Amino acid sequence: MKQKSWADKKAEVKFVAEVVEIDDETATLRVYSQYRDGLKDVAGYSHLIVLYWAHLRDNEDERRTLLVFPTRHARKVETGVFACRSPSRPNPICLCVVKLLKVKGCTLKVKGLDAELGSPVLDIKPYHPHSDSIPNAKFPEWTLIRKDR
Amino acid sequence: MKQKSWADKKAEVKFVAEVVEIDDETATLRVYSQYRDGLKDVAGYSHLIVLYWAHLRDNEDERRTLLVFPTRHARKVETGVFACRSPSRPNPICLCVVKLLKVKGCTLKVKGLDAELGSPVLDIKPYHPHSDSIPNAKFPEWTLIRKDR
Repeated sequence: MKQKSWADKKAEVKFVAEVVEIDDETATLRVYSQYRDGLKDVAGYSHLIVLYWAHLRDNEDERRTLLVFPTRHARKVETGVFACRSPSRPNPICLCVVKLLKVKGCTLKVKGLDAELGSPVLDIKPYHPHSDSIPNAKFPEWTLIRKDR
Repeated sequence: MKQKSWADKKAEVKFVAEVVEIDDETATLRVYSQYRDGLKDVAGYSHLIVLYWAHLRDNEDERRTLLVFPTRHARKVETGVFACRSPSRPNPICLCVVKLLKVKGCTLKVKGLDAELGSPVLDIKPYHPHSDSIPNAKFPEWTLIRKDR
């Protein structure tokens, strides 16, 4: 039986945190106080997955973009947005695996967050190596990042 | 200088695909035809990150939830939603790392997608082991999944 299609539907997201400081390789996230309880036990993880909103790309042109020339890679190749991590995509959701350096109240200090100062955050998820880590995953050679983190 | 806060703002997401078949461990995603170009080069990856919308949890009660007792783990512990992968959370966005088995036109066959039949998909991202794979990431023992995938 055919389910109804979601193609023309939309949904609403809210922001649970924002990037309040960026300092070289580290970033500080401030989780809004109304979401504080959601942080219980987060300090038990060494790594988190942060989903943030690329607010500077939240416009029709960028969200209509389906083909890009990703930057920062070994070679420029025109590629589909679902085959690269460009913030120009139908939903400007960016994903970073970050190292959790410190939790203090509503503030998380992390390493490896590729966001802008002021970027709003949609979600914070714990990193589970048993399901999230695929060390031997294959990828095209051109995607190798020139300046590695 | 303080940036304006995003705490009271919202944004809109649209759906780019949906889960059209679930068969044991494999699932089939149909990307809507208007997003087809976004799939260029996706076949070069062995694994993808799928962000899907837990539409059955898209209601005020579930989105107000900040503490849960995650299921499927070795031990039940009340934990914050940012420290677990519960679909009950401020934004019902779920994340799965999946193995890409086959691409045919707008259809992706994948393994390891923990979604419902009919779940709408927000985004598909390539899995980059150099930034996404942290084999030694630490996590609390209670999170070990009883029935591992």
